Amino acid sequence: MEKTLDVQGMSCGHCKASVEGALNKLDGVEEAEANVATGKVNVTFDEAKVNEQALKEAIEEQGYDVQ
Amino acid sequence: MEKTLDVQGMSCGHCKASVEGALNKLDGVEEAEANVATGKVNVTFDEAKVNEQALKEAIEEQGYDVQ
Repeated sequence: MEKTLDVQGMSCGHCKASVEGALNKLDGVEEAEANVATGKVNVTFDEAKVNEQALKEAIEEQGYDVQ
Repeated sequence: MEKTLDVQGMSCGHCKASVEGALNKLDGVEEAEANVATGKVNVTFDEAKVNEQALKEAIEEQGYDVQ
């Protein structure tokens, strides 16, 4: 499944790396791509292994708000 | 010696950490404090061991411009 999340507060390449890194660490996430300019985070994941709530929590743990 | 540098482009806590970390790695730097809101980086250092040019280069290597 592919889903785009709206994330507030990503301001630089470090932020991008921390969000993508946190998502990629989750079992079931196949691809994560964060766009700092738009705040969009595109995630491809296996719904049998991980859900949208877990994706959001992983991002929030890095200190960013998910809309 | 204490010196305040003007740094462009620090936007978040990761930026602060990367600038301070790069400065603290230099022999002769006693203290480094970056303020993301103002762009001011305050450095206390031993002039016998390190000079302002080396401080600026360390910051620039992290991807920020020093005025």
